[in-house]
Order: sequence, then structure tokens, then C-alpha cells
Amino acid sequence: MERTDVLVIGGGAAGVVAAVVGKSTYPEKTFVLLRREKQALIPCGIPYIFGSLENSNKDLMSDEALSKSGVDLKIGEALSFDTQNKICKLADGSEIGFEKLVLALGSIPVNPKWLKRTDLENVFFVRKSKEYLDDMISRLEALRKIVIVGGGFIGVEVADEIRKKGKEVTLVEVLPHLLALAFDQEICARVEEVLSSRGVRIITNNGIKEIWGEEKVAGITLSNGEKMEADAVILAMGYQPNTEIARDSGIELNSNGSIKVDCYMRTSHRDIFAVGDCAEKRDFFTRKLTNTMLASVATSEARIAGMNLYALSAVKAFCGTISIFSTSLGEVAFGVAGLTEFAAKEEGFNVVTGVFEGVDRHPGTLPGAQKQMVKLIVARESGIVLGGEVVGGTSAGELINLIGFIVQSKMTVNNVLTSQFGTHPLLTAAPTVYPLAKAAENVAKKL
Amino acid sequence: MERTDVLVIGGGAAGVVAAVVGKSTYPEKTFVLLRREKQALIPCGIPYIFGSLENSNKDLMSDEALSKSGVDLKIGEALSFDTQNKICKLADGSEIGFEKLVLALGSIPVNPKWLKRTDLENVFFVRKSKEYLDDMISRLEALRKIVIVGGGFIGVEVADEIRKKGKEVTLVEVLPHLLALAFDQEICARVEEVLSSRGVRIITNNGIKEIWGEEKVAGITLSNGEKMEADAVILAMGYQPNTEIARDSGIELNSNGSIKVDCYMRTSHRDIFAVGDCAEKRDFFTRKLTNTMLASVATSEARIAGMNLYALSAVKAFCGTISIFSTSLGEVAFGVAGLTEFAAKEEGFNVVTGVFEGVDRHPGTLPGAQKQMVKLIVARESGIVLGGEVVGGTSAGELINLIGFIVQSKMTVNNVLTSQFGTHPLLTAAPTVYPLAKAAENVAKKL
Repeated sequence: MERTDVLVIGGGAAGVVAAVVGKSTYPEKTFVLLRREKQALIPCGIPYIFGSLENSNKDLMSDEALSKSGVDLKIGEALSFDTQNKICKLADGSEIGFEKLVLALGSIPVNPKWLKRTDLENVFFVRKSKEYLDDMISRLEALRKIVIVGGGFIGVEVADEIRKKGKEVTLVEVLPHLLALAFDQEICARVEEVLSSRGVRIITNNGIKEIWGEEKVAGITLSNGEKMEADAVILAMGYQPNTEIARDSGIELNSNGSIKVDCYMRTSHRDIFAVGDCAEKRDFFTRKLTNTMLASVATSEARIAGMNLYALSAVKAFCGTISIFSTSLGEVAFGVAGLTEFAAKEEGFNVVTGVFEGVDRHPGTLPGAQKQMVKLIVARESGIVLGGEVVGGTSAGELINLIGFIVQSKMTVNNVLTSQFGTHPLLTAAPTVYPLAKAAENVAKKL
Repeated sequence: MERTDVLVIGGGAAGVVAAVVGKSTYPEKTFVLLRREKQALIPCGIPYIFGSLENSNKDLMSDEALSKSGVDLKIGEALSFDTQNKICKLADGSEIGFEKLVLALGSIPVNPKWLKRTDLENVFFVRKSKEYLDDMISRLEALRKIVIVGGGFIGVEVADEIRKKGKEVTLVEVLPHLLALAFDQEICARVEEVLSSRGVRIITNNGIKEIWGEEKVAGITLSNGEKMEADAVILAMGYQPNTEIARDSGIELNSNGSIKVDCYMRTSHRDIFAVGDCAEKRDFFTRKLTNTMLASVATSEARIAGMNLYALSAVKAFCGTISIFSTSLGEVAFGVAGLTEFAAKEEGFNVVTGVFEGVDRHPGTLPGAQKQMVKLIVARESGIVLGGEVVGGTSAGELINLIGFIVQSKMTVNNVLTSQFGTHPLLTAAPTVYPLAKAAENVAKKL
């Protein structure tokens, strides 16, 4: 039987980082990463293979990081593992023994039981499999009317990308707004504005009830009874933790199906770690279970698991997730970190918000200048920044990371107000009206 | 005699922010901002009026921020002030009485005494005056060989911009590298590489010795004796605090000519504040006097002065400057925050550095993707991040601000390693190889 010191199951972002950081921290240990797919895709890049990228080969995760770090890559499918004897059984009948196991099992698209006929031809999910997606893209080529169900990040990004191919794209969301779980409503409205201006038809406040057609899908019926023809239906109704083999092997799961983990990413078995979409997330401010699934959170967790495999470090842990994410539609980028105003109020925080809209270069007459809006959500009682949102140009991606650091450090609005920023005409807003500082001023006035 | 509660002298970035924030904090007080120029330029935008912007009218500071905030703008020149009776005397013979005075006097180009003949025609300084610069730009139009002396930010940016007009541009720097006081040497080398590829001739390790010509300048002699013809010479040899009237009015200055201030930006007179280039800067880590002159630092100080005019707030103060700056040459942006490796070692810190170079989008095959390099400078003993440097695309401007926050918060490399970042294909590096996290991993391995 093959043996390794550390076995990582899963070749997504979390698995790769856990293996690479683990090997770098414990160079004397042997590491094997077990992956089902011969070629793995960069998960966040998947929406872009529908438009901006020529094909899925442009979105391949390089295996160089693994080989350069000294991690052995093994292609194969884990069927189950024996936690007592520390053995993993593979689909081909072989076994691998391990000292430490890292589960990076990822997530699979939600396929709700009440929705029938999802097996019709041209009904698709956004699966993280190259073969599946290559086939899906080649089928979509000949089709014209595309209905996408689910206005979360995947739905929005895939809609925008498919629209680039000149298709007739309709995006259906059951909640009142696209990205309604991510952003405050006024930002969602901006997303909808940009997406419609790019030719995507948006239907909100209306979910899917039925799929119909003979062999091939012909259309869907919405919850309000309206019928809509479709040559293809893409179901982007969220993802769920892929934790069947963990459960079957006796690892404890939460009510939402995620694997229970502690601050070091250890499961109920102390030699077995879980990271990424398959692992429990708890909110930074409330410790409630959340359903956040982001590659960036996954890699943060993977780093922690990798560093703590053989010896715990109290300064190399984190016990709460803040979601930081961003997206971009055409020229406009959107970012959010921590709690939205809506979420903060729902949780019971008494909040004060501040908003400022400026321009992301200075003077605003410089080529490429775009509007930049910052919103801060601050706890009234303590002045602590609970969250922030950004709409702007490309730099919004790192600006929201800055706000993410502010949130994670539990900085107060006074800390922000007295902080030093760098500015440059071609790269940022003007120092006199740096939107983050102005939004903080705005909050401070109300406190 | 005219009277106001608060008089702000100077209409640059610092003056405007002190007045606007002050008025917003103390709405019941009257504010007058006294400015010499009818029209003020956005200071950081000045290099761009030589190339990217059509003319200086595209770089005007809007007076709307002042009028909208209820700050009265008065055009006039302050000659002196009587600190005892709290009266400012103007060049036109009039006087303004005040309760509180904010000096935002700015800086003036260094014109070294040993350098003769700077009064020859077509010898220029980069002054912050619209009239002067308009005249300079119209004269430059007919001239071909332009020699710029001084390879700091202004020299580098002006060289790149003038080169865009097809001129023959030579940049002369007495230190071994361009931007040698700002960046570590390997980054300076990248700056030089980009600037030469854009057609600027660079001479380093060689200063100016003499200027020659009859009525008009004809050339310069370098310190090594080499002679160089020039149709125009632009002296960008740094700036000095513009503090003559402060000194003459009895306000205490430092040895470098800056106005002494405390953590609330109060001068030796408790009702007189000073902010921006004219005010003392002390290093965040050492409290040594520094010569940092940045609009972003100036506005941070101005915000503090504005908030503390009538009542001190211990949480609205800062006692040490970290320089955060960035610049952009063509497609490549450069940023630095806190101490460089060189500066940290010079000060006596035992440092560990970590470098990682990746790509600022993911997959790197996406349009617009550029290399992104992060260097972190960390104190070995405590793990505290002392500084960082970035080379990348447009997002480098906010990424260096993120590193600036890390430095100001005295975060350790473990804090960085366990932090959560957001990533997006079109906006940032991949979560698996986010250069800031990888540079931190790199450092952690060496600690």
C-alpha cells in the first residue's frame, strides 16, 4: 500500500494551497494531492470561459505550483477513508495510507428536489469540471435563447459573458434583486443597471417553478405562472458542500452539510483537516454558520491548515469568516467586505453609514477616470467598522481588500479617519476627496 | 477689519481639507481660506499637464468643495501675522482677525545657492503656479533638447510626460538610482528600465555642476566634467518648506525649516496649526525628522487639524508619518509604504524580506493582465511589517494603501498570513498566489 505523511483530497484552490503551504512549513514530510480531474480549472475563472476567454484551456490551473513545491500529484477518486487506520480507499481499488488528511472536497451545484426535469437536454449546471463545461459550451454555440436561473455571482457573471456572444440572455432571480445576499440594495440596483445596459434581460422577484420540453428543454414556467421559451436553461441556484464521503466516513457535519472545523481547520478527528467550500464557515461578528463559498476564503483557510498540520500555532489561526468579494461587469467593478447595512441591521447592530462618490483618478479629466463610490457600515456604539461596499474601476478589487483589513482588524471609524493613504493621479482618487476617508468623515459626523 | 473664526492660509490640498473638515466639525464657526492664486492647480496632477492633459485648465482644483462646505474663499497674499493680537496682514494692506489660524503654506522648489545662472532664459523650476507653468509649457513647445535635473518623483514623472511630446529628454540624478530615496534599488532599476524603454535618456551617479549659456541656457556641465547641450533645463531638485512668514511671525521652526507641530498639528502657538509641506514630519517608527512631502500625507494632517481646532480628541491624532506613495509610467505602476529594506537597515532594524511576483488577474490569460510584484520588509524580532513595495498594474495604487494600513496598524507577518483577502479574475491576482500573501509566507519561512 502506498503511504504518504499528508494526503490532500481535492485539487481546487483550497487543496493546492493547503498542500503547498503545508509542504513549505514541513519540508521533511511527504505530501500527496489526490485529484479526480486530469486537468483542473481555476474555479473563479469559469464564468469567463463562456465569453472573454477563447476556451477552457485558457483557464487551466497550472500544476507547476505543486511540482515546484515537492507535492506529488495523483489523479484518482477518493471513495472513502478509514479514520481509525488512516487509510483512504480509491475508486480504482487502490489505497493510500496517511498520517494527516486534508479534505478539500469543494462544493457541487444545488439541484433542488422539487425542480423536476433537470435531466432534459440543454439544461445545464455550472459544474467545476472541464469535460462537462467544454461540452456545455459547444452545445450552447448553436442555441439562441438562454435562460439563467439564479442571480448570485455565478449567474450574473455567466449571464454577462454569454451575452458577449450575442445570445438572447434572460437572468431570473427569486429575490427582489440580483446579488441580493451580497450587496445592499442600492448597489444591487447599480449591478442591474449595468447588466441591462449590456443587453441582459433581468427578471427579479420571480423564481423558477417548472422546466418543460420533450427530449430537449423548451422553456420554463416562473413562480408567477408566466411561461418563457428557452433553448437552454442554466441553473445557477447556489452550491452545497460536497461532503458525502466525509459523512460516510464518520466525520461530523453541521446542519447545512458543511464539515465541522475549529480555528485550526481540524475536523472532529484531530488528524483530519477540512478547508474550503466543504468546511464550516462562521461569521466573524456573530459566529453564526454561514454559507460563504469563495476561493479567497478557501485559500485563507488552506493556509491555516497547512501551517498547523503538525503543531498548532495560536497566532496562525482565525475563528471567523468575513466575506470579501468583488466582481466586474464591463468597466464597472463592485466589491463588498464584512457586513452590509442590511445584514448588520438584521443581526441587531445599531449602525451608522457613510457614503461618498468621487472619481478614481485625479484630476477626473485624466484618461480612464471612473466614478468611485465607497459606503461604510459602522457600529454606532463602538465606532467599529463592520463592513464596506465599493463601486468603481479596476482598483475597486484592492480597495475592498483594504476595507476588508479594516474590518478584520476591528478598526474604528476614527482609526480610518486618522490613517494615512497614498494617492496618485493615474492610480487613485485625489487625497482631498479620497472616498474611503470622506465616507469615514461622513460617518464621524453622525456619531 | 474683517474677522473670521478660523483663517486658513494656503489653497493647496492641505488648506482645502483643513478648511472643509474644520467647517464640517465646527459648523457654527466661520472659515476663510486665503489663497494667493486666482486658480489653484491640483498639485499631484502638475506633471501630467506636460503631456497627458491638454493643458493646465484640465488640472484645476475645483472651488466647489469650499463653497459647498460654507468656507469663504478670499484671494490674497498673507504677508505676516501678529500671533498676540491674532491678526493677519495682507499684501494689499488689509487685515483679517482670527481666533484660530491654520498654516498650509506649502513648499517651494529648491534653488541651491551654489548653482549659478538659474536665472537664464529656459531654465525652469516646477512651481505650483498656473501662470508660471502655462508660460513654461508654451516656451517648451519650440525647444527640443530638454535636460531635467533631479530623479525624484517630480523629475521622473515630468520626464516621462515631456517625452510623450517627442522631445529629446535627459534625466540627470546625482544618486546611484532614480527614486533612490523612495524605493529599494531593485525597484529603482525597474523604474529606470521602463523609463528608458519609453525613450528617456537616464544619467545617474552624476549631478549638475554648472549651467551655461548667454541670455538663454545652452547646456549644463555635470559633476564629472561632462558637458551636455540643452535647449531647456528643468530643475527638479526637491522642495523646501515655505515657512518664511511663519518664522518672521515668531513661530518655531525645525532645523530643516519645517514648522514644529505636535500630534494635533498645533505649532508653538496653541491657536495656530500647521499642515502639509510646511509642517514638521516625524517618522512613524523612529520619530526622526523627515522631509516627506506628499499631498496624501498633507491631507491626513489637515483632517486632524480640522477636527481638533477647538477641542482635542485623543483618538483623532497621529504622531508619526509613514510615506505611502505610488507612481505610474506607461502601464507599470510602482508603490511603496513605510520603510524600504535599505532605510530599515540604515535605521538599525534587523529585517527579513519576502518577495513574490505573480500576475494581477487570473487566469493570467485574461486581457489586461500584468505582472504584480510585492516585497515585504519585516522586523525579525517582532514580526512587525515595517514596509512594503509593489510593482504592478493600476491596482498597485490601492494595494500599496492596503500595505500602508498593515504598517500603520503595526500588524505582524502572521496577521497578514491569517488575513482574508477577496479576489476576482478581472480585478486581482489569484487567491492561490495572491502576491501579498505569498510574500508573507516567504517571510514567515525565514523567521
